[in-house]
Amino acid sequence: MKQAAIGVDIGGTNVKMGLVDVRGRIVSQTTFLTEAGAGRPQLMRRLVAGIRTLSQEARLRGIRVLGAGIGAPGAIDVEKGRVYFFPNLPGWKNVPLKTDLTRALRLPVFLDNDANAMALGEFLFGAGRGCRDMIALTLGTGIGGGIVLGGKLFHGHAFSAAEVGHIVISEDGPVCGCGNRGCVETFIGNGYFVRELQKKMKQGRRSVLSKWTASGKELTPLLAAQAARAGDALAKEAWNTAGERLATALAGLINVLNPERIILGGGVAQNGPILFKPLVRALHKKAFPIAACSVKVLPAALGVDAGLIGAASLVFAARNQ
Amino acid sequence: MKQAAIGVDIGGTNVKMGLVDVRGRIVSQTTFLTEAGAGRPQLMRRLVAGIRTLSQEARLRGIRVLGAGIGAPGAIDVEKGRVYFFPNLPGWKNVPLKTDLTRALRLPVFLDNDANAMALGEFLFGAGRGCRDMIALTLGTGIGGGIVLGGKLFHGHAFSAAEVGHIVISEDGPVCGCGNRGCVETFIGNGYFVRELQKKMKQGRRSVLSKWTASGKELTPLLAAQAARAGDALAKEAWNTAGERLATALAGLINVLNPERIILGGGVAQNGPILFKPLVRALHKKAFPIAACSVKVLPAALGVDAGLIGAASLVFAARNQ
Repeated sequence: MKQAAIGVDIGGTNVKMGLVDVRGRIVSQTTFLTEAGAGRPQLMRRLVAGIRTLSQEARLRGIRVLGAGIGAPGAIDVEKGRVYFFPNLPGWKNVPLKTDLTRALRLPVFLDNDANAMALGEFLFGAGRGCRDMIALTLGTGIGGGIVLGGKLFHGHAFSAAEVGHIVISEDGPVCGCGNRGCVETFIGNGYFVRELQKKMKQGRRSVLSKWTASGKELTPLLAAQAARAGDALAKEAWNTAGERLATALAGLINVLNPERIILGGGVAQNGPILFKPLVRALHKKAFPIAACSVKVLPAALGVDAGLIGAASLVFAARNQ
Repeated sequence: MKQAAIGVDIGGTNVKMGLVDVRGRIVSQTTFLTEAGAGRPQLMRRLVAGIRTLSQEARLRGIRVLGAGIGAPGAIDVEKGRVYFFPNLPGWKNVPLKTDLTRALRLPVFLDNDANAMALGEFLFGAGRGCRDMIALTLGTGIGGGIVLGGKLFHGHAFSAAEVGHIVISEDGPVCGCGNRGCVETFIGNGYFVRELQKKMKQGRRSVLSKWTASGKELTPLLAAQAARAGDALAKEAWNTAGERLATALAGLINVLNPERIILGGGVAQNGPILFKPLVRALHKKAFPIAACSVKVLPAALGVDAGLIGAASLVFAARNQ
């Protein structure tokens, strides 16, 4: 009999869920709005209903469901399956989500934060296949991270490890959402990237981006990547700086953890060589030679489905232990 | 029959070796000059002779020797027991030290770098007893480090993990010996500490340290600690800054690894509250609350014998696996 896991990726905007087979392929998937404002009981009902529907579908297809894995946006006690809190979902504080879902579904349920789930997905089915020690980063508004050591997700003493966005690279840098100054996230996050470009254009730096934004296009890192590919000097410079700053944080991580692979996902990382070239060049300058030479820096392989496949991976990993 | 391990701590200046019992107590120890200039064959002969003498002593005392553990100052392939190189000992490049010693001694031999050995010693017999995830730092001219995760030394993919001194805290900081800029080691190392104090005194800052150094005392972090304890404002400020800068690097480590304990050893760390108070205060400001609240920052417990006991610990840890 074929086997699969149900993956549930709870985001601030959407919930994605799907049936994922043991080779990491999505057999069937569904998406609905999270509607954070509608409250926790409402979301719980929809989670349970969605998972039940997927279970029924699996039965019809002759697939055995091994369990459900939930990737969720916040702090979680992974051992107890308890939500500490979700910063962007009101009403989710100190919730025994694993117990509640297990009782409602009569299925094994596994819970982790979304960044850890994505790292595990890349480890089992994506750019991390075949390695033992890896760090996965998701670059977007902020920087999320997950760490696999010795072939297992590394959670730390209170399950709060892998906050790689909050490595300080400049003590007197911009104030970060975490309260500290100069976290790498403040320099690489989309907001700072765009503000720095705007500042330089106001100071008189010429760039094709002035024309593009004047014609109504939104200034984003992605647009700057297009400009850089078209040869725009300012846009290239912005991406070089971003690559070098990310390298400063990653060099520290590499010196401390000496990983086999570093995997970069998220919008910013999809711009290929424009980020990866300055990043890798700077890493070789900044990190210890033995560690820098033994690490591969790769783009994430699972794309927009990373969260869903990662959540399902929680089930597969638990069975392999 | 009582059991013990032989620990060998190879330093740039001295080699310490001793018989260490299974409770981490030194039964007998001996020290000789490394004499790096005398060459590798000479040092090898003295290592073998010293370990043989300790083995004979163990026999006379009715103690069974389980093996010899070597803590060495450089890069090592821990699995193969091969020295990549020792930066301060010429002639030690690509040496199969484990094979050579095992053959000469007919004893199980284990090899690791000195900072890892010290971390393991603290984990088994010192300030790390009873925890699972810890980071040990040795503060001195530079910053050495060792990491224990899940109850085992963590080495990384190419055995070069735990270079915690080379986390960048200020991208435009002073040039570090590693070639990078603004590594935490450049701010906390003895040299920078003393230079900053001298600079401020030259700029006219008053301090009891001017009088003390004028009367022939050498300006060291230790002397500044004495001055701080005596109420000297400049010395206090220097130690506060050192504590805050160390906290910047440790906050990143805490956010990434969420350890249970951080253990600080070495000369600088022996100054107690003068370092620990500003450090812990800043950690709570700089690290994520869950991770900051779950970590204990402790002084190392093994003192000057840490290297020796740590080296012997390599034998005990290998037997427990």
